[in-house]
Amino acid sequence: MALPRSRPSAVRVLGVDPGLTRCGVGVVDVAQDRSARLVHVGVVRSDPGAPIEERLALIAAGLRAVIVEHGPQVVAVERVFAQHNRQTVMGTAQASGIALLVAGEHGLPAATHTPSEVKAAVTGYGSADKRQVQAMVARILRLDEVPQPADAADALALALCHAWRTGARGAASAPLTPAQRAWQDAERLARR
Amino acid sequence: MALPRSRPSAVRVLGVDPGLTRCGVGVVDVAQDRSARLVHVGVVRSDPGAPIEERLALIAAGLRAVIVEHGPQVVAVERVFAQHNRQTVMGTAQASGIALLVAGEHGLPAATHTPSEVKAAVTGYGSADKRQVQAMVARILRLDEVPQPADAADALALALCHAWRTGARGAASAPLTPAQRAWQDAERLARR
Repeated sequence: MALPRSRPSAVRVLGVDPGLTRCGVGVVDVAQDRSARLVHVGVVRSDPGAPIEERLALIAAGLRAVIVEHGPQVVAVERVFAQHNRQTVMGTAQASGIALLVAGEHGLPAATHTPSEVKAAVTGYGSADKRQVQAMVARILRLDEVPQPADAADALALALCHAWRTGARGAASAPLTPAQRAWQDAERLARR
Repeated sequence: MALPRSRPSAVRVLGVDPGLTRCGVGVVDVAQDRSARLVHVGVVRSDPGAPIEERLALIAAGLRAVIVEHGPQVVAVERVFAQHNRQTVMGTAQASGIALLVAGEHGLPAATHTPSEVKAAVTGYGSADKRQVQAMVARILRLDEVPQPADAADALALALCHAWRTGARGAASAPLTPAQRAWQDAERLARR
């Protein structure tokens, strides 16, 4: 997509939904008035049959290409939890490490957000289901269709979540959207 | 340490005990007769107070420096399990992903081994305690002292484990050491 570079007042965020087989990537520009615009969305894939060291190198190369092409100012990565002793969780954790590493190597700050933080930021409801999140992402970015696959939409949700959460801190005088207010309430509850 | 490059008949293995605060690295040459020689041992450290993206970039840089200086032919990394929902486990998993990535980016094959595989290979006993493993590493490599910290000794144990396990496969006619026989028995039991 040929889009102009980020507006001076906007922050350009790369969101990464880490995974070995499909690593979702989404870049958005978010303005100070909290409006958002799609810059790039896609998926970095690696062959499940390939050796793990080659898969991780492919993912790193794919993420580096997105950073070089779209020049995000910050990288937001989904936080992975070790809830189950399953090898897929470890693969996801390794992919998240690669995303954070690539950010660091490009001198970009990185942040992680939990799935419920992302849901609360985008839909106003921390237990929203995946389809609600994806539909809201399409609405916020004024897209005709929900980005596919789900990992790509999740990466956009992460990028929006990051911009809104950090923007809300930076500009306390701006009014909160209902979703942001819900997130703030959820965070307050979580701190108790 | 100024040591000659690996002998033609030996394999040079880099072992990595992944960790964010202390990432153990050990390089050994292992000959076809299974004798082993220390090439390098050390620890790549990162500041627990630094942002995660910078810590991972430091670890990647440290591992790359060891690969460039010592030219291993293969990289062995401890396999991490998600047994507990603790952030340290995820940090270890991310560091292991970095070690595998760096191997892949240098065109080196990588392998993972579980802690009990390492213990069985080095001491002949899969439930050996850490000190037994470290004492055996010092004995095998004819060192006057156990390498410190423990992460460094563990990285050497991993490298030895990898060379012996893959060497035993490659040269079936060579007699097995007691430790290798114990490992083979343990592996057979694990397959049942």
